[in-house]
Amino acid sequence: MLSPAEIDELSTFAQRLADAAAKVTLPHFRSGLSVDNKRGEFVFDPVTAADRDAEQAIRALIKSHYPTHGIHGEEHGKEEGTSPLTWVIDPIDGTRSFISGVPLWGTLIALNDGSKPVIGLMDQPYIGERFLGRPGGSELISRHEHRVLKTSRCTKLEDALLGNTDPAMFRDEASKSAFREISSKVRLRRFGGDCYFYCLLAAGTLDLVIESSLQPYDVQALIPVIEHAGGIVTSWTGGDPQMGGSVVAAATPELHAAALEILSKVPSA
Amino acid sequence: MLSPAEIDELSTFAQRLADAAAKVTLPHFRSGLSVDNKRGEFVFDPVTAADRDAEQAIRALIKSHYPTHGIHGEEHGKEEGTSPLTWVIDPIDGTRSFISGVPLWGTLIALNDGSKPVIGLMDQPYIGERFLGRPGGSELISRHEHRVLKTSRCTKLEDALLGNTDPAMFRDEASKSAFREISSKVRLRRFGGDCYFYCLLAAGTLDLVIESSLQPYDVQALIPVIEHAGGIVTSWTGGDPQMGGSVVAAATPELHAAALEILSKVPSA
Repeated sequence: MLSPAEIDELSTFAQRLADAAAKVTLPHFRSGLSVDNKRGEFVFDPVTAADRDAEQAIRALIKSHYPTHGIHGEEHGKEEGTSPLTWVIDPIDGTRSFISGVPLWGTLIALNDGSKPVIGLMDQPYIGERFLGRPGGSELISRHEHRVLKTSRCTKLEDALLGNTDPAMFRDEASKSAFREISSKVRLRRFGGDCYFYCLLAAGTLDLVIESSLQPYDVQALIPVIEHAGGIVTSWTGGDPQMGGSVVAAATPELHAAALEILSKVPSA
Repeated sequence: MLSPAEIDELSTFAQRLADAAAKVTLPHFRSGLSVDNKRGEFVFDPVTAADRDAEQAIRALIKSHYPTHGIHGEEHGKEEGTSPLTWVIDPIDGTRSFISGVPLWGTLIALNDGSKPVIGLMDQPYIGERFLGRPGGSELISRHEHRVLKTSRCTKLEDALLGNTDPAMFRDEASKSAFREISSKVRLRRFGGDCYFYCLLAAGTLDLVIESSLQPYDVQALIPVIEHAGGIVTSWTGGDPQMGGSVVAAATPELHAAALEILSKVPSA
């Protein structure tokens, strides 16, 4: 259990990691960088020089300041620490947004205490927005404003604004069908968000985000941002979402229950 | 035919209109505004106070500076002028993005000379980006940079990055099927862009945008931005796109032809 002073110190350090990542990622954004890939063929998980170099910058800072902490990153895998604390990082979540020039990608940084992510940060340096969640509250730090994040009071699917990155992420027919059913009930649906949509849920402008095929580093930083803004995020069966997979985030317990009623019937959920 | 000096003067004025619109729209963005609607029930074309008031601010400026010019706006309809010049405006294109808190909406301002839009501007005041197209070139004016826009050199569907706001905009089965066919051939597809995706095409980070159900004020401002960056925008049959409907924008003539080969077969195109 981290003390409030430790939470403060490590939240400040998380922001320092985001600053270091932004110095690497931002010069590459819209610079006409070529897309690298892991398998010698095009895959829908392109890895850019920016992604790799930003993770290296983050890892170097963690190792020099907290050498006992573990690190789990998208690009360079897991390094166990002697402390139970582990940084779970994705330097560019939304690589496809990044290479398309869409400024909805983000740098995701979570601190996991061995049981759950306790501090989470999403940084979008092109727009100049940073969403930070930790015990005590979630906040948006931007060039426009600095404000406390609070989810909406939406309780019904009929009133909900739903976000999802791309329905192609649903791989089996039951998942597709459940997503279509919920899409047909909500007031409005938006595609194309990646991590950004979970932060808008924390900010109260979206009410529901439903996704699948997520990795732990895709979701861990977002959990504290959502929970400390008053929202709920679980797997499609209502379980712990920190390992990724199929995830649902909702503004209120009532809305979460309404979505789960449909999602929990999916066999692969 | 407008002279270069007139183009300069009217481009500067278009930016003044965007400034006036931003003063109205920006305070409403993410402010928890209630969604108004035209028919007393929820429709997927929500009209906000920001949208209406921004158009009034734009109209007032045009009337005081160019009283002979016509005006065609989304909210307050057409007003004929005694000059052939008409301002075609949509104060908030991407109203659904706006109410969801996604900063990819834009203020669209076109000046049509009676035969075609000659000056086009898309302004995204939250991010702080302005895309301006006119004879002589297209440019991005932002807080990060000020640069000339140039479309990519992508010539093949297999290499193309495709953007589209939401596939639900395709209303008939032939249109849906054509979009699916192109989606299956391209390298990468992104949803959720509204006007922003056409500007990214001008900027060279997207290669192809395919949409339908557009209004004249949805597309006129984007035509000069794309064309003066080296791109091509037409209807799905290769015709003049200024009246909206089904529209395809491409980075190169070769890519445009490849898309048209599939799209022009759609009976409703």
